[in-house]
Amino acid sequence: MIEAAAERLNGHIRKTPILSSPFLDKLAGRRILIKPECLQHTGSFKFRGAWSAISALDEAERKNGVIAYSSGNHAQGVAMAASKHSIASVIAMPSDAPRLKIENTRALGAEVALYDRAIEKREEIGEGIAAERGLTLIRPYDEPQVIAGQGTTGLEIAQQAADLGVTQADVLVCCGGGGLTSGIALALEKHAPNLRARPCEPEGFDDVKRSLASGQIQNNKAASGNICDAILTPQPGDITFPILNRLCGPGMSVTEEEALRAMALAFLRLKIVLEPGGAVALASALFRGDQIEGDDVIVVASGGNVDPAVFARALEFLT
Amino acid sequence: MIEAAAERLNGHIRKTPILSSPFLDKLAGRRILIKPECLQHTGSFKFRGAWSAISALDEAERKNGVIAYSSGNHAQGVAMAASKHSIASVIAMPSDAPRLKIENTRALGAEVALYDRAIEKREEIGEGIAAERGLTLIRPYDEPQVIAGQGTTGLEIAQQAADLGVTQADVLVCCGGGGLTSGIALALEKHAPNLRARPCEPEGFDDVKRSLASGQIQNNKAASGNICDAILTPQPGDITFPILNRLCGPGMSVTEEEALRAMALAFLRLKIVLEPGGAVALASALFRGDQIEGDDVIVVASGGNVDPAVFARALEFLT
Repeated sequence: MIEAAAERLNGHIRKTPILSSPFLDKLAGRRILIKPECLQHTGSFKFRGAWSAISALDEAERKNGVIAYSSGNHAQGVAMAASKHSIASVIAMPSDAPRLKIENTRALGAEVALYDRAIEKREEIGEGIAAERGLTLIRPYDEPQVIAGQGTTGLEIAQQAADLGVTQADVLVCCGGGGLTSGIALALEKHAPNLRARPCEPEGFDDVKRSLASGQIQNNKAASGNICDAILTPQPGDITFPILNRLCGPGMSVTEEEALRAMALAFLRLKIVLEPGGAVALASALFRGDQIEGDDVIVVASGGNVDPAVFARALEFLT
Repeated sequence: MIEAAAERLNGHIRKTPILSSPFLDKLAGRRILIKPECLQHTGSFKFRGAWSAISALDEAERKNGVIAYSSGNHAQGVAMAASKHSIASVIAMPSDAPRLKIENTRALGAEVALYDRAIEKREEIGEGIAAERGLTLIRPYDEPQVIAGQGTTGLEIAQQAADLGVTQADVLVCCGGGGLTSGIALALEKHAPNLRARPCEPEGFDDVKRSLASGQIQNNKAASGNICDAILTPQPGDITFPILNRLCGPGMSVTEEEALRAMALAFLRLKIVLEPGGAVALASALFRGDQIEGDDVIVVASGGNVDPAVFARALEFLT
């Protein structure tokens, strides 16, 4: 499915490069190879899964339009992929999502339905609107075609790592519900079996790390309250968890300050813009090096949709 | 020479992608295709020319080491290229260059010799140290092998534009002494004759624009005093100007505020970090669209080595 998704995505997604910096290597004590998915269309890897899911629908289904629920990045990915397929999209977004993500989603052509994340369940809202209006629901991660789309990142990593002579390394992935991490893990299983995916999360929202450690799905106590908004999901998915559990190395977690510091270093040394949730894998490589083995580590920098005020906070760590 | 440089650079430089955003297209009224050389090693295109020049030296010359003068980006490019060739480098830098660029140059392994740009001429300092210590001087732009290296950017643009079906467009290039612009113009002349290079400068430091308009080399009144420090050169080069004059379209110029606004939009829509001097071509595409014809415009975003405080100033335009 990942290989088929890659064919459907060909010519529509950006093949992101691999970046590195001798300054970051020195800080980390090993070479860090960064896959900047912030440079993907809509500023995050989510466009891959959205395109994969929409392009896999049959013609009749597709023309009725799609619906998604998302705190922002999946929203933008689905909105743009729908708009490029010339179909309608409705996105249910929490009313406390970053303003920028809500505005972008609308500007990309979607109808936005806001809900209160404290009292309403997004799954119910999404399924309700889908049934009512005859739209196809595109779940953010527990959806095989979405996982396949995100997995194309893993196909590119396998090829790019091989081109750089790297055949054995941990691949650190910013992880919410596990769509990107499980997709990458599946792609690596076949195409680069000695590259091992490892989910990275914010401390206090490390449901995937704890689930992997216990072998059972664990959930987070809180639904919000961390700067890494893009990857705050209640628990790993029913489809993603068995994949993560079978293929991934141990999870890692970092503090909010470490995520902000990683954003500042990505600004300074790589000239890319990361959002907090898109920087936790880089932060893990930089500040949790004792949990990693080997001369190289690969980092997926998953998104860059950050409000300017939050970015300015990160820059303060440089002065 | 450009094609030969491309062979020497192969495997050592980053082939930067082409970025775009529907938001920027809408603002500009046409499609903008951005070549982000801020993602090149050392954060600017200068690494290309530096690698080209050093790799073209004969073995005996090379092992004596090299010297360069530069306000910062050429400095870092030469320092890293020298260090990767395992040779020594000395860089003469103005004492008012951005702190970050001076620190980076040292950290990349170069010896930095500071001078006062108000009272000393950098050419004399560079030539003096070169003679005294037996080093090869690598001029920042008036040097054929440097122009050839920068020209490899143009080879990539020709190929990438063709892949996107763009055969006719202006190519806006941030321009100081003209090394990048002349190199790109030469590459396009052969490989994409309907793509036309156009130099972009800060207002008040538009020596190239005025030189092209008059057909004669003109110089700037001031040597400093503009936020676009990377591209403040006194006048076009003796080697670069005849190339620019033969091949380029009219020059363009933008205000400091427009450069900062372009940096803010590159942050918001492309997730890349630009320095003011690296943003003047994007600013020209966004805010001087009346001087451009055609459905597409190609923009070279030449560098991203910016102090955090200046970047924070640019972000204020978003609030």
